[in-house]
Amino acid sequence: MSLKAAIVLAGCGRGDGSEITEAVSCLVHLSRSGVDYKCFAPDAPQADVVNHATGQLAIEKRNMLVEAARIARGDILPLAQLHSEDFDMVIFPGGFGAAKNLCTFAHDGPECRVLPDVERVIKTFHGAGKPIGLVCIAPVLAARVLGSASGGAGCEVTIGRDSAAAEAIAKMGARNVPRDVSEAYVDAANNLFSTPAYMCDAKPHEVFTGIGVMIDALVASLQPAGVR
Amino acid sequence: MSLKAAIVLAGCGRGDGSEITEAVSCLVHLSRSGVDYKCFAPDAPQADVVNHATGQLAIEKRNMLVEAARIARGDILPLAQLHSEDFDMVIFPGGFGAAKNLCTFAHDGPECRVLPDVERVIKTFHGAGKPIGLVCIAPVLAARVLGSASGGAGCEVTIGRDSAAAEAIAKMGARNVPRDVSEAYVDAANNLFSTPAYMCDAKPHEVFTGIGVMIDALVASLQPAGVR
Repeated sequence: MSLKAAIVLAGCGRGDGSEITEAVSCLVHLSRSGVDYKCFAPDAPQADVVNHATGQLAIEKRNMLVEAARIARGDILPLAQLHSEDFDMVIFPGGFGAAKNLCTFAHDGPECRVLPDVERVIKTFHGAGKPIGLVCIAPVLAARVLGSASGGAGCEVTIGRDSAAAEAIAKMGARNVPRDVSEAYVDAANNLFSTPAYMCDAKPHEVFTGIGVMIDALVASLQPAGVR
Repeated sequence: MSLKAAIVLAGCGRGDGSEITEAVSCLVHLSRSGVDYKCFAPDAPQADVVNHATGQLAIEKRNMLVEAARIARGDILPLAQLHSEDFDMVIFPGGFGAAKNLCTFAHDGPECRVLPDVERVIKTFHGAGKPIGLVCIAPVLAARVLGSASGGAGCEVTIGRDSAAAEAIAKMGARNVPRDVSEAYVDAANNLFSTPAYMCDAKPHEVFTGIGVMIDALVASLQPAGVR
């Protein structure tokens, strides 16, 4: 029986959706590891649309699910249909979509609101002891949902060496453990696996490598001890 | 001195632009090989916009350069500014964008028209003896520009084992050499490097691997013999 992963996307593109190289790196490494995966995204409007050639806001509306389907090659379901009992792990790639669409961190910092379906997914996987993978800025989602400021027991993630983001994570009642792009950090007590990816000033193959390290650690945690 | 590659994109998404996993695989492998790259796309409307969640046409207009900038993280120039003297190689990822935006192959088959800037880029790199990488359906571009039906001397590419596409390539006065997703084909006489990618019913890591084989062969062809 293959392991099954759910990937939570939030659009298509670093400025207003899921960071594309990070999302593809997750899919390639899961596929390489023989993990079956399914992509999900909220069936709801993006917070905004950014023209990625100019960096300017575009006067346009786009739907997270419809745009994320570009990365998923059409094989995608609404996030409302993601249930922790159907999967062995869940992975959140980064990009501004994680910080603007899945929660309001980009605007509200440590006081951010998290999309109810995202909060539900994090709480149910965490509660079931199933691993959660978090790339780039996505660790703020776990920090907000599981951190002591929200009544949780706290958790540890890496968001790289960005001191402003680390401070925000501390305010949410969680802890940033600085790591480089080629590394992952494992909070074994909470089954959280994170890697900084484009939170670092990195090249595509470095992001790809770091995500591979994270997914290898995550998949190994699910193998019987003798098979590792 | 690092080698320099130009990547020609045509939007963002398999149905109406560049296939995302293929494009990212090109960038990751070039980056891994220490090759500096720059992305380009025509600054012009896509042929159409496809809702990738439903597969249906959307009543919308999008620009190839603006959408491709999502893959390129904003670091992209208009295709009109791509000149063969500035680069050591040029690479065309696949996706319907290559067959609908860069040429009209998806509608017109072997009688297709090729965007003038794409024709110019292929002819000038080919004329300068500089390698051209072609992924998935993109080999039809070289077949149309360099094939004997257009007055060229012909060329060899792989488009996998799709017999309809192979027949169209033959009608353009070129030849398809069947290869699997994990392989590349090299037409050494014409410096053409191709790999079938998602022309095969493939998994993401297989597409990633095949593109790596193609880029390794392409980069090796540019190294002095002693360094290979």
